[in-house]
Amino acid sequence: MTEKTILLDHGSGGLASQELIGNLFLKYLDNPTLHSLEDSAVIDNQPGRLAFTTDSYVVDPIFFPGGDIGKLAVHGTINDLAMRGAKPICLSLGLILEEGLSLDELERVIISIAEACKEAGVPIVCGDTKVVPKGKGDKIFINTSGIGVVADGINISSKNAKAGDAVILSGTLGDHGITIMTRRAGISMEGDLKSDTRALHRLVAKLLAEMPEAIRTMRDPTRGGVATSLNEIAAASELAIELKDEDLPVRPTVRAACELLGLEPLYLANEGKCLVVVQGDMAAKALEIMRSTPEGAEAVIIGTMTQGKAGRVVINTPVGGSRVVTPLHGEPLPRIC
Amino acid sequence: MTEKTILLDHGSGGLASQELIGNLFLKYLDNPTLHSLEDSAVIDNQPGRLAFTTDSYVVDPIFFPGGDIGKLAVHGTINDLAMRGAKPICLSLGLILEEGLSLDELERVIISIAEACKEAGVPIVCGDTKVVPKGKGDKIFINTSGIGVVADGINISSKNAKAGDAVILSGTLGDHGITIMTRRAGISMEGDLKSDTRALHRLVAKLLAEMPEAIRTMRDPTRGGVATSLNEIAAASELAIELKDEDLPVRPTVRAACELLGLEPLYLANEGKCLVVVQGDMAAKALEIMRSTPEGAEAVIIGTMTQGKAGRVVINTPVGGSRVVTPLHGEPLPRIC
Repeated sequence: MTEKTILLDHGSGGLASQELIGNLFLKYLDNPTLHSLEDSAVIDNQPGRLAFTTDSYVVDPIFFPGGDIGKLAVHGTINDLAMRGAKPICLSLGLILEEGLSLDELERVIISIAEACKEAGVPIVCGDTKVVPKGKGDKIFINTSGIGVVADGINISSKNAKAGDAVILSGTLGDHGITIMTRRAGISMEGDLKSDTRALHRLVAKLLAEMPEAIRTMRDPTRGGVATSLNEIAAASELAIELKDEDLPVRPTVRAACELLGLEPLYLANEGKCLVVVQGDMAAKALEIMRSTPEGAEAVIIGTMTQGKAGRVVINTPVGGSRVVTPLHGEPLPRIC
Repeated sequence: MTEKTILLDHGSGGLASQELIGNLFLKYLDNPTLHSLEDSAVIDNQPGRLAFTTDSYVVDPIFFPGGDIGKLAVHGTINDLAMRGAKPICLSLGLILEEGLSLDELERVIISIAEACKEAGVPIVCGDTKVVPKGKGDKIFINTSGIGVVADGINISSKNAKAGDAVILSGTLGDHGITIMTRRAGISMEGDLKSDTRALHRLVAKLLAEMPEAIRTMRDPTRGGVATSLNEIAAASELAIELKDEDLPVRPTVRAACELLGLEPLYLANEGKCLVVVQGDMAAKALEIMRSTPEGAEAVIIGTMTQGKAGRVVINTPVGGSRVVTPLHGEPLPRIC
């Protein structure tokens, strides 16, 4: 028996496309808005400003410990909305499939997307599928775009950090990046390396409900890692950031794998973590709220915004030294997300 | 001198990504919302329901007579919003670049996107760029998603067509599809084969301003062509559609190329045309409005919704015969858009 695979026909817009939509996409992702299959979804509006974001996912391999490209695509776009203080309301799903992709693998990805959407409470309301000839793509690329609403009074932006603010990281560093990297390198580590892919909108909603004005900036440190996101925050706010080396949370297995491969966890991608810059005197309370959530249970204060040289991120080491943390230059690992 | 090309670094999220953003994307696409470079764009809301759509573009070749992949991506997503009666308000831009793509070619595409956005009055407000290794993509794939607003009282849906409604096509059939196909086949035709890629939101706005309740359904017949879109309308509205063969507008060069290649213009993709189903007694007025616009100057009434067999599309020929027009099955041309 031959395995069923994606054919060019599945991207034609004709009957084969319709079969894929009916037998696979609607089977798992169905909701009244998606079901209409019109050129656009039409959804009820909600009060507040609109947040809009887009991300394409090209991760290789498409399945990895802790997740897959589908979960990543749902979580990543939800998180990009949450980082502006928005409540995510819906997602789009754009697939670029390579001819010859196994329909079983595609089904696994669609099921995973459906689970992630259900768990997050954010539906896919519109979609598109293209098929490219074998050798012109790589199994599956996914674009998810998303719409959210930002309540009045919420104003989260990289520019808003102020000297004296605390920098909180919601959990450990580098889990996603090192998982993909060891997987691709064929390295098997003792222990529990797995991606941290996770939606963060509920954690953000809790913080904003308790202290809407104390939260200045949020970023999810994906490609480029915490180092790059902190540099962006420092540059946008024209402040410095000081970190304490001993405060940076890294799982022992992740640290061991990084040492083996000569990598710095600060530059590795995270897919279920956020940096929260919060008014200094509210930091303890913010930390408490974050730790009360499953996704923020390991949150720690990792640094402080200071009046130092604008745009500079510095780590102070336990022995009294310090070093500058530059943004990522060079690609330690292509196709991490 | 070696030509500058896209490197894996350009997708890292680090400095090379930032250079690409600063030197290319912001140079041509800049506006205050995009400029903030946050995880999401935040935009003012507008009264009405929201329309949301997504489309990926993988057309090969990326430059063709009448347009390129960038223009297609802007027009296509604007048109999908317009087909639900929405006023487009903003677009996202997701790029998947192949390592080795010439930076000159990328710049040409970005300039083309910028021109199409400016001409349409619809800005790109957020974006994302990924790079895949050489041989894992094909130069450039583009996802554009878009948000629009649907004014109160507007209710456009494939389900809404009624018996006696007229079916208007905004211009000639098959121009985009045959242009890509002859280009890929290396066939050079006498005359003026070129893509019809064009934004249709202004034509739609004029129609809806004059007769908001008479417009039942609109579709832009892209992949699968007019035949497939009409079948979708017939199925959704549970009516039949009767066309008159002599009313189908096809340019002589397009007809000649179709005959040469054994193709049926009804199945070829269009990228700047719409089907409008309008209340029968308003059809003459709708036609007049459409013809008063540059994009609808060649509009014609091509058929009627009837109480025939639900879902069936029939063409009546000049000699008194008739034939059923099925939806597209099989892929005459992959990567048409």
